[in-house]
Amino acid sequence: MSKNILPVILAGGQGTRLWPMSRADMPKQFLPWMGGTSLFQRTLLRVSNAARYRRPIVVTHADYAALVKESAAQIGLPLEAILLEPVARNTTAAIVAAAEYASTRFGPNIALHVVPSDHDVEVNQAYWQANDAALEAARQGGLVTFGIQPTTPETGYGYIKAPAQVGTSASRIELFVEKPTAERASSMLAEGGHFWNSGMFMFEAGTFLAEADALSPDVTSSVRRAIAKSTAISGGLVFDEDEFAQAPNISIDYAIFEKTSKGVVVAAAHGWADLGSWDGVWKTNAHDASENFIQGEVTLDEVTGSIVVTDHAHIAVHGLTDIAVVATRDAIVVTPRSMAQKVSHIVQLLRDNTQTRALTQTQQVAYRPWGNYASVAKGDRYQVKRISVKPNQKLSLQRHHHRAEHWIVVKGVAEVTIDGAVTLLGENQAIFLPLGCVHRLANPGKIDLELIEVQTGSYLGEDDIIRLEDEYGRV
Amino acid sequence: MSKNILPVILAGGQGTRLWPMSRADMPKQFLPWMGGTSLFQRTLLRVSNAARYRRPIVVTHADYAALVKESAAQIGLPLEAILLEPVARNTTAAIVAAAEYASTRFGPNIALHVVPSDHDVEVNQAYWQANDAALEAARQGGLVTFGIQPTTPETGYGYIKAPAQVGTSASRIELFVEKPTAERASSMLAEGGHFWNSGMFMFEAGTFLAEADALSPDVTSSVRRAIAKSTAISGGLVFDEDEFAQAPNISIDYAIFEKTSKGVVVAAAHGWADLGSWDGVWKTNAHDASENFIQGEVTLDEVTGSIVVTDHAHIAVHGLTDIAVVATRDAIVVTPRSMAQKVSHIVQLLRDNTQTRALTQTQQVAYRPWGNYASVAKGDRYQVKRISVKPNQKLSLQRHHHRAEHWIVVKGVAEVTIDGAVTLLGENQAIFLPLGCVHRLANPGKIDLELIEVQTGSYLGEDDIIRLEDEYGRV
Repeated sequence: MSKNILPVILAGGQGTRLWPMSRADMPKQFLPWMGGTSLFQRTLLRVSNAARYRRPIVVTHADYAALVKESAAQIGLPLEAILLEPVARNTTAAIVAAAEYASTRFGPNIALHVVPSDHDVEVNQAYWQANDAALEAARQGGLVTFGIQPTTPETGYGYIKAPAQVGTSASRIELFVEKPTAERASSMLAEGGHFWNSGMFMFEAGTFLAEADALSPDVTSSVRRAIAKSTAISGGLVFDEDEFAQAPNISIDYAIFEKTSKGVVVAAAHGWADLGSWDGVWKTNAHDASENFIQGEVTLDEVTGSIVVTDHAHIAVHGLTDIAVVATRDAIVVTPRSMAQKVSHIVQLLRDNTQTRALTQTQQVAYRPWGNYASVAKGDRYQVKRISVKPNQKLSLQRHHHRAEHWIVVKGVAEVTIDGAVTLLGENQAIFLPLGCVHRLANPGKIDLELIEVQTGSYLGEDDIIRLEDEYGRV
Repeated sequence: MSKNILPVILAGGQGTRLWPMSRADMPKQFLPWMGGTSLFQRTLLRVSNAARYRRPIVVTHADYAALVKESAAQIGLPLEAILLEPVARNTTAAIVAAAEYASTRFGPNIALHVVPSDHDVEVNQAYWQANDAALEAARQGGLVTFGIQPTTPETGYGYIKAPAQVGTSASRIELFVEKPTAERASSMLAEGGHFWNSGMFMFEAGTFLAEADALSPDVTSSVRRAIAKSTAISGGLVFDEDEFAQAPNISIDYAIFEKTSKGVVVAAAHGWADLGSWDGVWKTNAHDASENFIQGEVTLDEVTGSIVVTDHAHIAVHGLTDIAVVATRDAIVVTPRSMAQKVSHIVQLLRDNTQTRALTQTQQVAYRPWGNYASVAKGDRYQVKRISVKPNQKLSLQRHHHRAEHWIVVKGVAEVTIDGAVTLLGENQAIFLPLGCVHRLANPGKIDLELIEVQTGSYLGEDDIIRLEDEYGRV
């Protein structure tokens, strides 16, 4: 029975509250931080037990198709399907789409385990106990939401109230509580019977679709039309934009769970955190003796209860409590930790300004299937990049209309093809790529290739690439 | 008479409280911020009126000899002498040294106007009035200190109490008040007769030396021995280190003014600020409607009373009051504005750690007589620099033992000499400088030359330069 669980992974969020690390082109769930494994990959690994799970469905934004494909390939986990939203339409539309796909492919009795891709989840006995209870309730026709046993009076989460005596099986839901005040959160914690609303669900596809048809028919009809007109691309299935955009932008809590009579909650006592904000990251990680969490080069002096994270410049903080300071090469955010949820508002301000919009869109370090690159200096008519290529990888065969490039190898070996002629460059060798030439860079060696690229020209945008051939299907 | 005023400029401070902008190799008084003119240069300009002043004496640390020389040359103001301290020994030793030099050269009746090089001073009628009154009092045998009419209950300055009715001439000093509490500062402001202790002085060299011999003989004897054994270098006169180090490390307020019966205060109503901390910079500059002072790319959201300064990355601050955030390419400081004085403590922590010491020593942008350079990327065995050379300037003829270099011109024209052969490079042209070659870079053009330098090698320290010829006397 349990082999029929189909994981549905929601991976379309932009994670603006974790700016400046999280950016539109590389949102937090795909960032290779914390030991090189992304939250998305850790989510895939949690549902990779073949004895329990089928291959997962990933629902994400069309922009992230390649990231999803590559992230799964990196850890060798095949996917059932990648469903691509042309526009973001909240959780109801995403889950309806997954349920439709699953029901058509595996029949209405397929059990769906819906999980966000940006949570920190502890997998222990309590975790499996909760999942078994949820599956049992789903088989009995319930729409299951997972309620996490709270450990602190957290004000950043929603809560679910259930009967005070909750056992290891599903209980009815008494009430959903929006993000509470500190006072309310404390009294709920003291009272018991209140659980963090985890955003994880379990139900049979058919049960869910029938209830969604009854309670939210605008969503199901729009999504079905969008699927009917969808387009298969190499990375997945893209829904029709006009139809999908008509689905109301509404969360599954509002559209379904607050209305249905089939909703039940399964209480879970495993460790769990929504890494939705820097405050969330602070709470999830171990603290030093002064209750600080630091990452990167940091010096603290009379600082307590703070999170200070940097991937580049050294950060020195003095005389502050409960502060969040996060710095990347090109952007720095400073806010009280308790207000870290508001970073999304800063991102909105930056996005609304054409001068600063790029700061919300593009990572300084851009991750690609072949390696990564970072812009390290920019000026009038020039840009300098550090490019790192993994062994046996090659970039696309390409051409630029507006820029010439100089490449200087500083580590490893580069195989450079220019207009058909192949040159092998060792450390400290340089080559010039004139404007308009057809060229390709590859690392034929056994160690990472690092090179410095100096671009010159009047236009140096990333979109001045005409790809002629590509190993990663990007032509 | 007034033509005999000899300015004595104190320029030896490291300005650690303005870290990370101010660094040991380029302290705040020499930084070309605020319109390209340094505080040191603005100080020189204030005492450049030939009708009143002789050429100034500058007392500074031996490390800053070249900076002083070049800064004065840039604005075309010749100096009388540069006196170089091998070790920092506070204001008494510095001023005794200047007075000794002046007395020997111009006789004991020469009037000295002693001014720190890092103050923001408004030159208006009140300024000249105060100076005239000070000179008169000095001619009558007084040791004059300038007391600035306070405008706010500042707790970061020392105060001088004088009789409540102070006219335009010198008055006796009743009391020195150390940096007061906020309460004390407010009551002094309300009471009147209290002035900010500006650290500016006027007296005849002979009067001062006689009083210093009486009150602080350890300083005068050490300094005289240090001068007797001093060494002339191209940039100035370096005192003997062993002798100068024996001078007690004591300020002129403690050593002389708190003890002498000849001390008087001249009250001045001109604008004045000691730019000693980020809080001082905030106070000195105009604020926006939310009482913030920003410089560089900054986004503020619900922020008041703050100073946010960046020369590189975009800084976003949310929900904070009275905060100071200052960022350079490689270091960021965050502290409550009221505690900005404590940045010197952070600098001490960083200096005590071999891993972070360099952050307190070296500017990312290094200013040189020929232009400037910045390190924009570093890795194992390579470093990338952006180099900017002013028109008609040339770097020294040099050689490296440990590194090869690639130069790529991105703006302007470069004249490159390699082992005697001269090449002219235009934009987008590159050249390789093999390890050990004798080379020189010059800008023969009419606009700034910008180039990207990629260094490769096992050791890339700045000290791997063997200078063979130099336009700026650095061989």
